Amino acid sequence: MERVLPFRFAEGEGVFWLLDQRRLPLEEVWVPVRTAREMASAIRGMVVRGAPAIGVSAAYGMVLAHLAGEAPEEADRLLRASRPTAVNLFHALDRMKAHWGDLEGSLKEARALWREVEETEKAISLHGARVLRGQVLTHCNTGPLATGGYGTALGAIVEAHRRGRVRHVWVDETRPYLQGARLTAYELKKAGVPATLIADSMAGFLMGKGQVDAVIVGVDRMALNGDFANKIGTYALAVLARHHGIPFYAALPLASVDPSLPTGEGIPLEERPPEEVLELRGVRLAPPGFPAYHPAFDLTPHRYLTGIVTEKGVLYPPFDEGLRDALGLA
Amino acid sequence: MERVLPFRFAEGEGVFWLLDQRRLPLEEVWVPVRTAREMASAIRGMVVRGAPAIGVSAAYGMVLAHLAGEAPEEADRLLRASRPTAVNLFHALDRMKAHWGDLEGSLKEARALWREVEETEKAISLHGARVLRGQVLTHCNTGPLATGGYGTALGAIVEAHRRGRVRHVWVDETRPYLQGARLTAYELKKAGVPATLIADSMAGFLMGKGQVDAVIVGVDRMALNGDFANKIGTYALAVLARHHGIPFYAALPLASVDPSLPTGEGIPLEERPPEEVLELRGVRLAPPGFPAYHPAFDLTPHRYLTGIVTEKGVLYPPFDEGLRDALGLA
Repeated sequence: MERVLPFRFAEGEGVFWLLDQRRLPLEEVWVPVRTAREMASAIRGMVVRGAPAIGVSAAYGMVLAHLAGEAPEEADRLLRASRPTAVNLFHALDRMKAHWGDLEGSLKEARALWREVEETEKAISLHGARVLRGQVLTHCNTGPLATGGYGTALGAIVEAHRRGRVRHVWVDETRPYLQGARLTAYELKKAGVPATLIADSMAGFLMGKGQVDAVIVGVDRMALNGDFANKIGTYALAVLARHHGIPFYAALPLASVDPSLPTGEGIPLEERPPEEVLELRGVRLAPPGFPAYHPAFDLTPHRYLTGIVTEKGVLYPPFDEGLRDALGLA
Repeated sequence: MERVLPFRFAEGEGVFWLLDQRRLPLEEVWVPVRTAREMASAIRGMVVRGAPAIGVSAAYGMVLAHLAGEAPEEADRLLRASRPTAVNLFHALDRMKAHWGDLEGSLKEARALWREVEETEKAISLHGARVLRGQVLTHCNTGPLATGGYGTALGAIVEAHRRGRVRHVWVDETRPYLQGARLTAYELKKAGVPATLIADSMAGFLMGKGQVDAVIVGVDRMALNGDFANKIGTYALAVLARHHGIPFYAALPLASVDPSLPTGEGIPLEERPPEEVLELRGVRLAPPGFPAYHPAFDLTPHRYLTGIVTEKGVLYPPFDEGLRDALGLA
């Protein structure tokens, strides 16, 4: 059993190594990053992806700036511009700002940030493992490659398997980007968890046949009432799970709850280029000029959730009370 | 507006031309077939696919046997062995048997068979068009390429668009084989019907947003109570449509009803090689050695159906009565 990390820091050499996620699962290529400028370019180019993993990478980007003698103002600017909507990225860079010009302090802060990701996800995994059993179905990628820690939904699955509670995982391939087929499958294989890849359209069939005991997914952003945005296809899974009486969980760090949003109505849902539906690794799938639509995220209303797995425990309805409590809000 | 046919017969030249469906939608390549032996090989190789289209092709295969001087016994044997589970194929060859050794009679029978497919599907299209409106969602390929006629579910959609009832079609790409992206998209484009390709996981999201007014699909095989087998993903669409209060129709020729089956329990569901999920046109999607599951069909219980569109009209519950009536059973 092995946890796959998206990066490692070789302090003595002043190199932050990134596992190139664009080339997984067929090739394991490690890319050396020596400056904040190189880190910004690697984040922009999706060598590393997943909000928590980007946050940790950006923090180490500032460490590299010190080592390479780059001006911190310029390093910070370049990193901030690399993925303009990544909240974890801004949060990490805000924390690093207190240590500009201080290599030792900067290194300590970056290490602390990474450790916090690990600790939060360890707690999510332990809580989540208690509610999973039998055969579990998941969607998209929520494992260590996306975070640098243990993962959220996938962390819980791996921990539940370690305890003998989960015996098998159904992995949605997650069209159009195939994060399930490429990354989740890779992580589960490394972790030694028995798993089988399916096309997204097969999940309902398996539920109908009684071969799914629980569904667990990650969260892109959650409102205070538990409504949440996540990878396209999550909402359909929630409806199918409800129809078949199958427990449906979302796992997330409390930092992904947006306290400014009472309901999910205010969560913007990213649409991405239709080309990503029309082509797969350069292979054209549809007739030339045919239109496609690519909503990359959907919104799942809180009423479909059995429970919300956080680092402070599993919350059950009413979620607004539990989330306010966990966040320390009035 | 153009109907795309999977074949054409050049009687003077003694050539039956097949549009190579393996190369659609990127290339339109017509393959000449001059003997029953060549026809059997084209059917086996999936140059032509879709049960009704295979039936018509096999009938013309017997015509070619006469033209090319092949022994009818041997021609019949080769064609029967080309796709061993295709009921339409056996039915067509049974009809052709009465005309062995008679070119004129054989040609007349093949033409009649083709015309019957066209007439049946014209009627299905006309009946189906009356129940569709607004934005329609469909799955897999049920158009003229699969039949040689007008298609079943797709025939109804195209006719409903012609009458101004349907303004837009959502096309499920239909993983893993992408019949929707490759073939249905191609047919709708040729027919001039506004349509948009989506990944299968997006259908539920569109239903939730009120952007789907009806779902219509084809049928692989239907039991007497209306339970039916169809391409994997159909059952999930049925559940999602029910949850959102969206009408859900199946369209089929009555010949696809199996009068020996009182319910769908007896319908065998074909599983296909996992490789078809793991690879796409030679591109590996998952880590080497990762397992996949490929149920190619699922079973949708009749209670999810709003109506069944047949050449004799649209049937409503109770379906067993309607189907027995339409089939002329006691």
